[in-house]
Amino acid sequence: QGDAEAGRVKSSTCMGCHGIPKYNNAYPTYRVPKLGGQPAAYLASALKAYRSGERPHPTMHAQAASLSDQDIADIAAFLSSAPAN
Amino acid sequence: QGDAEAGRVKSSTCMGCHGIPKYNNAYPTYRVPKLGGQPAAYLASALKAYRSGERPHPTMHAQAASLSDQDIADIAAFLSSAPAN
Repeated sequence: QGDAEAGRVKSSTCMGCHGIPKYNNAYPTYRVPKLGGQPAAYLASALKAYRSGERPHPTMHAQAASLSDQDIADIAAFLSSAPAN
Repeated sequence: QGDAEAGRVKSSTCMGCHGIPKYNNAYPTYRVPKLGGQPAAYLASALKAYRSGERPHPTMHAQAASLSDQDIADIAAFLSSAPAN
């Protein structure tokens, strides 16, 4: 089970790319998905796919490589409870 | 450039899995991401990754395999303009 409060801290690094409010108006070609409000189970499976390389995104692999299953559950819990910006 | 109106029709098949409002309350383990309000450029790159197999998801590959670039642009335009349910 994920701890959203711990996830808030652990996901601070994600905000650099993912945390730009209203960005698709300002940067119409910005390819970074919004994470707020996505189902925790989806976020966890995507992070694990980046960690394992099943999803081949280099930057996301670098981010996910150091995450434990608990980190991932916490981050997923936090982001799924955050508003879809 | 994507045509959101054409995209509305073309994305009707997606709604079977993606179109369940409030599903993460009803199905906490549901792994399907919400698409509404995601940046069009992200949706298009994800669909192309499923089409090419770069993202190895069997169901999504089956869905995307028949889509042209224009289909993808239209679907991305529609979904990015839809509310984040």
